[in-house]
Amino acid sequence: MTQYTNSTLETRLESDSLGTAQIPSDAYWGISTWRAVNNFPISGRPIGSLRDLVWALGAVKMAAARSNEAAGLLSAEHSHAIQQAAEEVMNGVFDDQFVVDRIQGGAGTSTNMNANEVIANRALGILGLRRGDYHELNPIDHVNRSQSTNDVYPTAMKITLLRNLERLMVEHQQLIEAFAAKGREFSAILKVGRTQLQDAVPMTLGQEFDAFSETLREDLLRLSELQPHLTEVNLGATAIGTGITAPPHYRQRVVKELASITGLDLKPATNMVEATSDTGVFLLYSGLLKRAAVKLSKICNDLRLLSSGPQSGLGEITLPARQAGSSIMPGKINPVIPEAVNQVAFRVMGADTTVTAAVEAGQLQLNAFEPVMLDALVESTQWLSSACRILREQCVEGIAANEAFLTRTMAASLSVITGLTPLLGYANSAALAKEALEGEKSLRQLVLERGLLSEEQLRTALSPMELTGAARVEQSGAR
Amino acid sequence: MTQYTNSTLETRLESDSLGTAQIPSDAYWGISTWRAVNNFPISGRPIGSLRDLVWALGAVKMAAARSNEAAGLLSAEHSHAIQQAAEEVMNGVFDDQFVVDRIQGGAGTSTNMNANEVIANRALGILGLRRGDYHELNPIDHVNRSQSTNDVYPTAMKITLLRNLERLMVEHQQLIEAFAAKGREFSAILKVGRTQLQDAVPMTLGQEFDAFSETLREDLLRLSELQPHLTEVNLGATAIGTGITAPPHYRQRVVKELASITGLDLKPATNMVEATSDTGVFLLYSGLLKRAAVKLSKICNDLRLLSSGPQSGLGEITLPARQAGSSIMPGKINPVIPEAVNQVAFRVMGADTTVTAAVEAGQLQLNAFEPVMLDALVESTQWLSSACRILREQCVEGIAANEAFLTRTMAASLSVITGLTPLLGYANSAALAKEALEGEKSLRQLVLERGLLSEEQLRTALSPMELTGAARVEQSGAR
Amino acid sequence: MTQYTNSTLETRLESDSLGTAQIPSDAYWGISTWRAVNNFPISGRPIGSLRDLVWALGAVKMAAARSNEAAGLLSAEHSHAIQQAAEEVMNGVFDDQFVVDRIQGGAGTSTNMNANEVIANRALGILGLRRGDYHELNPIDHVNRSQSTNDVYPTAMKITLLRNLERLMVEHQQLIEAFAAKGREFSAILKVGRTQLQDAVPMTLGQEFDAFSETLREDLLRLSELQPHLTEVNLGATAIGTGITAPPHYRQRVVKELASITGLDLKPATNMVEATSDTGVFLLYSGLLKRAAVKLSKICNDLRLLSSGPQSGLGEITLPARQAGSSIMPGKINPVIPEAVNQVAFRVMGADTTVTAAVEAGQLQLNAFEPVMLDALVESTQWLSSACRILREQCVEGIAANEAFLTRTMAASLSVITGLTPLLGYANSAALAKEALEGEKSLRQLVLERGLLSEEQLRTALSPMELTGAARVEQSGAR
Amino acid sequence: MTQYTNSTLETRLESDSLGTAQIPSDAYWGISTWRAVNNFPISGRPIGSLRDLVWALGAVKMAAARSNEAAGLLSAEHSHAIQQAAEEVMNGVFDDQFVVDRIQGGAGTSTNMNANEVIANRALGILGLRRGDYHELNPIDHVNRSQSTNDVYPTAMKITLLRNLERLMVEHQQLIEAFAAKGREFSAILKVGRTQLQDAVPMTLGQEFDAFSETLREDLLRLSELQPHLTEVNLGATAIGTGITAPPHYRQRVVKELASITGLDLKPATNMVEATSDTGVFLLYSGLLKRAAVKLSKICNDLRLLSSGPQSGLGEITLPARQAGSSIMPGKINPVIPEAVNQVAFRVMGADTTVTAAVEAGQLQLNAFEPVMLDALVESTQWLSSACRILREQCVEGIAANEAFLTRTMAASLSVITGLTPLLGYANSAALAKEALEGEKSLRQLVLERGLLSEEQLRTALSPMELTGAARVEQSGAR
Repeated sequence: MTQYTNSTLETRLESDSLGTAQIPSDAYWGISTWRAVNNFPISGRPIGSLRDLVWALGAVKMAAARSNEAAGLLSAEHSHAIQQAAEEVMNGVFDDQFVVDRIQGGAGTSTNMNANEVIANRALGILGLRRGDYHELNPIDHVNRSQSTNDVYPTAMKITLLRNLERLMVEHQQLIEAFAAKGREFSAILKVGRTQLQDAVPMTLGQEFDAFSETLREDLLRLSELQPHLTEVNLGATAIGTGITAPPHYRQRVVKELASITGLDLKPATNMVEATSDTGVFLLYSGLLKRAAVKLSKICNDLRLLSSGPQSGLGEITLPARQAGSSIMPGKINPVIPEAVNQVAFRVMGADTTVTAAVEAGQLQLNAFEPVMLDALVESTQWLSSACRILREQCVEGIAANEAFLTRTMAASLSVITGLTPLLGYANSAALAKEALEGEKSLRQLVLERGLLSEEQLRTALSPMELTGAARVEQSGAR
Repeated sequence: MTQYTNSTLETRLESDSLGTAQIPSDAYWGISTWRAVNNFPISGRPIGSLRDLVWALGAVKMAAARSNEAAGLLSAEHSHAIQQAAEEVMNGVFDDQFVVDRIQGGAGTSTNMNANEVIANRALGILGLRRGDYHELNPIDHVNRSQSTNDVYPTAMKITLLRNLERLMVEHQQLIEAFAAKGREFSAILKVGRTQLQDAVPMTLGQEFDAFSETLREDLLRLSELQPHLTEVNLGATAIGTGITAPPHYRQRVVKELASITGLDLKPATNMVEATSDTGVFLLYSGLLKRAAVKLSKICNDLRLLSSGPQSGLGEITLPARQAGSSIMPGKINPVIPEAVNQVAFRVMGADTTVTAAVEAGQLQLNAFEPVMLDALVESTQWLSSACRILREQCVEGIAANEAFLTRTMAASLSVITGLTPLLGYANSAALAKEALEGEKSLRQLVLERGLLSEEQLRTALSPMELTGAARVEQSGAR
Repeated sequence: MTQYTNSTLETRLESDSLGTAQIPSDAYWGISTWRAVNNFPISGRPIGSLRDLVWALGAVKMAAARSNEAAGLLSAEHSHAIQQAAEEVMNGVFDDQFVVDRIQGGAGTSTNMNANEVIANRALGILGLRRGDYHELNPIDHVNRSQSTNDVYPTAMKITLLRNLERLMVEHQQLIEAFAAKGREFSAILKVGRTQLQDAVPMTLGQEFDAFSETLREDLLRLSELQPHLTEVNLGATAIGTGITAPPHYRQRVVKELASITGLDLKPATNMVEATSDTGVFLLYSGLLKRAAVKLSKICNDLRLLSSGPQSGLGEITLPARQAGSSIMPGKINPVIPEAVNQVAFRVMGADTTVTAAVEAGQLQLNAFEPVMLDALVESTQWLSSACRILREQCVEGIAANEAFLTRTMAASLSVITGLTPLLGYANSAALAKEALEGEKSLRQLVLERGLLSEEQLRTALSPMELTGAARVEQSGAR
Repeated sequence: MTQYTNSTLETRLESDSLGTAQIPSDAYWGISTWRAVNNFPISGRPIGSLRDLVWALGAVKMAAARSNEAAGLLSAEHSHAIQQAAEEVMNGVFDDQFVVDRIQGGAGTSTNMNANEVIANRALGILGLRRGDYHELNPIDHVNRSQSTNDVYPTAMKITLLRNLERLMVEHQQLIEAFAAKGREFSAILKVGRTQLQDAVPMTLGQEFDAFSETLREDLLRLSELQPHLTEVNLGATAIGTGITAPPHYRQRVVKELASITGLDLKPATNMVEATSDTGVFLLYSGLLKRAAVKLSKICNDLRLLSSGPQSGLGEITLPARQAGSSIMPGKINPVIPEAVNQVAFRVMGADTTVTAAVEAGQLQLNAFEPVMLDALVESTQWLSSACRILREQCVEGIAANEAFLTRTMAASLSVITGLTPLLGYANSAALAKEALEGEKSLRQLVLERGLLSEEQLRTALSPMELTGAARVEQSGAR
């Protein structure tokens, strides 16, 4: 922003209770924004880069203008100018005018004032007046009428998160389907199931991938349950929930307008004082995002394990090659996509720490630390959406089973031994397994030679249907 | 456990696939437990100190015995002996025989074997046989029949958590009511609402306490939503979800039996492979517990702030004196109860980190780190229950408002100025507030002297009904 | 990057072991970078925005070229071209060519290849050849000669962090001095010291600010101790620490060259296998950064508390007004700068969670998750530097003591009572304090009326010198 | 404690400024302790279970008695009785009298008062007086003379941590040596080094274990650097660092006495006001503990990976069998010891979150949340010590290399290809590796058939000395 403060550009003079400042003539923002830009040179990422937030701010200001007009607090002319300006803000026309840093003190006041000033100045233009002519139409008395940062900002945050969540859920759903498709594709491929990294009992590769799909489906359900909590907004609460400065009936009206403008099923919070100080919904959001991320990370760990090799690893599956794996080792291909997803998960875990600390730090009638929550949650949601997409497109959809290898290893695997314990008992089975592992004779040979079971019994007990539970599921008639 | 290994006590010899060990003759546990005790000398807290876990293990073993008997895999005599032993375990008769450390490797196998051995040896006694006579009734082939640690242990965990959660919810509910009662008691006391620790606008102390009540109510609702997730169990999944070793129809049967024994609305998971590897529900639990704790911590911070003083603090309320506050400063009384609650919250936050790491670390068909999750979550739940109770009994119920002080400060407070902005505009109001703060004349004087508003207008605008929103709420007909 | 893949721009064809791709003719990067850009559309922040990282990569490549030339593995002509290209990279000429996303799988291979390709293509230009003519000078065989991502990348990370740390320390130092100056300025202003938010015993405001200075000084010392750990690099380790493909003596040589180029006191790690897999130093860095941030946050909490008001707060100090505090409440000024710093601290706490998870996730001979560590640590360091600067410039330097208010409150304060306990005993003092607090008579009156102490005794015991410890310090001759 | 309040035991009456209470006649603790026990029924773990803390409290009280006597503030008779009582406390005679819960509000006041009361009552006994006869020798005016909880408690915390740290370092050192011994034992066993779980280049198993040893050594060094920070104590600071109530020269004297009593190199903090409010050293401690834990966890992950199998895993090493691995799968052996260590690490990570939150929450002249820090840090240190011991004794010392398997796999491994890139170039090598992986001919055959290298060249390039870096190290003359 240095160019604005030391430049030879044409400027206009603006003033507030703290003094005056030269504002570039062509800026839609004003003195409050200017102060904030100077106060918070932290992340270098302006709020204008949060498209959904700017959209939401525009929507809130439009809803307020309509409600204020209806209450007789705003002339039709002013209201329409503000509404048109707000619509343009929603459409992204002024994104480059939202210049305050995402990380800001003041509980979002600077963000709200940035919106108020841009809309006021654009509305002045619509009215044929010059920017800065605030005696006619004022960022606070007109654009912010019946509002406070403390209801505008969290309402805009929730709308922002709802839109981001929606996109994440779409990506999540598609990833789920990709895993489910692989589950079907691999449904006849037998392999060793492992617990604690040790060979356990047989299963199909399809069951493994189907479980990935199912576990993500549960996360998606949890994420979807966030929506009703995010649609409960405190708009109309003004400063601390008592609705001071807002006219009667305003609260119900403005939320209805906002629902109509955004197409979201918004509703007023039941206890406005509570709703204004409470940020529990953001912690809920963060926690469910973390859960989704952590479980995705676990799946990526599994994909990397199962594809380890190509010679000295588990080698059960092959991930699609996405890039040469090394600047030194020829032919090496690395699981770069799952690794990127792991890192996104670590970041989401970190964001949860940030949000937890910020929520705990709220005091009395307000939590001043909502800006860092918003930044962390939007970033986490967007990164996680990208992670779901690249994992699906560039990895899962192209995974191949190393079927020949799996067939070979299953033929010799002692993991089938558990299938014999109902017939032979645990201790006898353990002794057999130990002997077979030493390698002279196969488990099958040992069982038959010693007449422990008949060929027929052995065939049934060790059939894939029996070992992998398909038999049991069928008989039970359950899924 | 040193006394057992080096003692001159009478012992019996037990053996497993790794060798033999001298077990004290009077111990109900056996060689697997003995190995585990030697392997995990970590926390010094035996699983027997987790009463609900032992109860749940007994219930699972009883349900399994019934189901195995029904499937023809266990004689009626064996089944009844096992059931009786399991019932005694549920009743706490053998808590001192559950000697394995809470923190243990092996995904809970040692816990499961501790239960299998205690029940087997007690059942042997019921059958008139000696402890260790496992050829007749065996911890694995009989007590653990159709089961694996990998379905028994998480099922018992969930039952344990359900019971602990239930108790937390009762305490939470009572705390909510205590805050609500104070909200009613303080409903006519005007005070300055604060945002960002700066004087904002008027409210009642009742609104403040009512908001505490309301915000905790939301947490309680979220906690209650955990229950359906915890009642979904994977019993019958055996080793990895394929149900290997379990007879047909066993899965449905055993869960029904377990529901009947425990009185909990348990149901089988839909995808057993997924359910066996997934620990997402524990992360969900942890996240909601953290949310409840963090919000309680915020409230305690507020109570400490509002009661700061007695001379050089906010001094709005007085917490009941619980103990002399200092070993050096005479007469000092500290907010020791909220401080203790804060610390419980910090611990719950730490537990969430532990659980997150443990959930992320699961591999392939199992998460081996469930024991540390259980320990962290049970402890967190119990500490939080205690925190809710002491906060209610020893603090909230005895809070008194410093009414005289509040009346005095409100009389001079400029926080009412916002109530005038709809009439005077923001900039004019700001100038008035500044002038009044300098102290020559009161806000009221300035407004009247300058003829900005009539007495009547001023009285209405500054009435408590108007300032605190009671007027608006009434007109709106909403809560 | 869409414009590159679907454009009608002129392109050149490049190939690698996975296939071929159209690369824009004017791009300095090549096919590896192209693949990476397509693979990792995550944060939208290219590595080129990490100025210090690009500088460090240039330096490493220059050092390697010199060492390879000395070992006879690179012709003088090639070496000089590479060195010149690397120097330009260091100077920022090609920052816009470092297009890979900061968050990337592959342990930094894409970052290393981006550097290799840019330098190779620029070197080809210096040699009068066209971009992409890799048979003459190859990104891998020449630019990356005797190197692996696994030694290049962590070495560049450490250089990046050293440079960022240096800047943080400068800001930290200046903040320390600002607090110390206030400590001197306020050294004669008496106030109530508080423990647990309750009035405790007297102190000076100067002591309070001096303690802020001192506590930050300790953090600065700890941060400075990071430097020797960051200067230990594994360059020359190549893939896993065994130095495969590097010539004899290369390791010593290349680190010496790099030290000379960077002006940093770099030295080779003692155990290269360990150094290549270990990321403990990044966790150490993160932990100390977190400590500095958390303590800064605590100070900001204190500043916000001490400046709370203006009427209904502690009101001991006034922070400089930086912006109008509210869009609704006239005249309100908020502590926006400390609030911004708090939020930076929460982010640094989150980054520590991210780094912890990433460090724990390393496997066998490498930690693939260094990119997310780098991103988190650089961002944390930079934000914390900014936080220190704005806290100093826009807050601390302008803090004013509310001296009249403090004088008034100290005159009536019972916090002096502890000064009488050595003379009157604890229980008697407590009774006196209680009586005085009820307000009929002052403490002084009560003591004198009852003849508990003489005027002279009282004057001495309650002198500021005595109460605030200045007397004791003087007598002890200690600081 | 219920038995004390409702019992028919004989009692004595004690009183404080809040009222009176019936104290069991045989209790050494008094009314302050009684209140605290009733106030904090949280963890169920009394401070008496923290042996080192009780020892440290005894030492502090002894040092204070000596210093007060020297300053003429305590009679020789009183001083000696207090000293004898304190010595008995140090020796553990009264551990069962330290009944306050570890988790307590009040910044440790209850812990300090528990010590003051036990020592006072025991001293009364030594003087031939009855418990509760406090007019003769009082817990506050005599035992706590010249002290405050705010200097006593953190001083005792630091002593407690120093003693725990010392024990951890001993265990850490022995674990380091165990890994180093394995490094030597396995120094001639070739294996595939892996990066990103993919086969990379050859190394020896000895190098891998030696790196484990080295990386832990670095952690040990960092832990040892904690000691000078923990030895800096604020004893003599009294309430807030100003030393109020303490006589001149007391501060220097009491720390010297305490150093002599404890045998620790204690020294007074330079800025007592800062030292009393600051808890940064506990965060430093926590961070370094976390680092040690996280790195241990990474090693355990590696051990579990390397020992995965026995058939379908990496199978490079065999961990000693510690217990039967499963209640269902015969013959299964699980890596239970590393799994337990992982869980300890997760707990230590959680403790760091707890400590971070507690440190951040300090306000003004004191941090009231030290009790939860102490609990978390002592527990973490002790668990980590146990983890180091069981990992060494029950796992590392018994690890065997699967040498035959490794020899077999290395014979066919293409991981040697990188060794040829300096001779053949990267692209050619990649093509060869790809062809060999397809399996018709070995790498060796391909190279020789095509005359790319001579037999002699191949032998040199692929010698273990060359591949694993032993050759380079030798030539360089460096370690």
